[in-house]
Amino acid sequence: MAEFTVVIGNKNYSSWSLRGWLMARIANIDFDEIVIPLDRPETQAAIRKHSPSGRLPVLLHRGLAVWDSLAIAEYLNDMKPEAGLWPPSAAARAHARSISAEMHSSFPDLRNSMPMNIRASYPGMGMTTGTRADIERITSLWRDCRKRFAGAFQKDDGFLFGAFGAADAMFAPVVTRFKTYGVTLDTDADAYCTAVLGHPAMKEWIDAAQHEPWLIDSYELK
Amino acid sequence: MAEFTVVIGNKNYSSWSLRGWLMARIANIDFDEIVIPLDRPETQAAIRKHSPSGRLPVLLHRGLAVWDSLAIAEYLNDMKPEAGLWPPSAAARAHARSISAEMHSSFPDLRNSMPMNIRASYPGMGMTTGTRADIERITSLWRDCRKRFAGAFQKDDGFLFGAFGAADAMFAPVVTRFKTYGVTLDTDADAYCTAVLGHPAMKEWIDAAQHEPWLIDSYELK
Repeated sequence: MAEFTVVIGNKNYSSWSLRGWLMARIANIDFDEIVIPLDRPETQAAIRKHSPSGRLPVLLHRGLAVWDSLAIAEYLNDMKPEAGLWPPSAAARAHARSISAEMHSSFPDLRNSMPMNIRASYPGMGMTTGTRADIERITSLWRDCRKRFAGAFQKDDGFLFGAFGAADAMFAPVVTRFKTYGVTLDTDADAYCTAVLGHPAMKEWIDAAQHEPWLIDSYELK
Repeated sequence: MAEFTVVIGNKNYSSWSLRGWLMARIANIDFDEIVIPLDRPETQAAIRKHSPSGRLPVLLHRGLAVWDSLAIAEYLNDMKPEAGLWPPSAAARAHARSISAEMHSSFPDLRNSMPMNIRASYPGMGMTTGTRADIERITSLWRDCRKRFAGAFQKDDGFLFGAFGAADAMFAPVVTRFKTYGVTLDTDADAYCTAVLGHPAMKEWIDAAQHEPWLIDSYELK
């Protein structure tokens, strides 16, 4: 049994689970993974068995349950400061946390109109005025990060603050949505999406999502 | 001019502003305060003058803009670790961040049905099935914190983790809503609300809210 356990929902659909799981991968911890299929009669009981709060994702460690992707990021950052979940400089770190918090509480139109569905392809669907405004805001956040911060670090692999970190994990489900719904992007945003989709942890998650047996009708737009 | 500046919306209505401002008070920083009345023709331009992201609250420090209450909490915690924004033990800290993140992304019914309006009194209004479920969840979070964590610390002033901290700041606007809308609470939740409303920083904010000249019609339920 590994020291940590990460309990998540379906890899194909659960955007918050993806964020929490990526935090664990970035922190480079040894963890067991439990996947609970969502939206089934037994789902709530299965979640409660592992997560006292009834929330997913949850990180279990030494009798402690840490729920919510942001709290998981901070817990792992406290435990593994050398992993670089947040950028090293105070200014970049504050900016990374600001955009992560904005992702955490905002963009309801994008979430509702373009639910995460990694293996589906629904080009052109879900595009409303509100969704478009959310996309504009998100891509301007990305552009601004790359311009102001990415070049300042020794390691620039094309991510928001150079190396793949917690802020990229927060936006990773958005990247999969842009692919699923065929959103046309400017060159900078497109390059960022390519970088995220090419990260080894993302490739691992996406591959697993492709092969998951469960289908949730309410997430399928066709 | 103080080292820090906190830019906020109306004290009577802006629940996120209250959270960010309380973080600054807990961190015991010297800050200038700029209040921008919301929902007026000149509001957006006034916000943009101080906050490049267009978001409030924003903490300004040495050319850096930190927006969102959670990012402000983490920035101030990095700068002033001795202030105790988060509890000292790793387990309590993880729990405080979990419930703060849950407050950050959840409880839409409570937010929509019972908008913050400190000086108003609308007893009985806004209570829907969804609001009731949100209230149940919030008061169970409080009860659980007090039971598991508050007694473990040297200083127990009746707050979630003993001393007044970032988690209390996250729930402070909820406490004012329970008062405005006359929500009946169990003894434990009622005692917690009394402790929050009696904190010197809350008394200062509430007093200022009472005397604010601006009225926003869309926040007024009568």
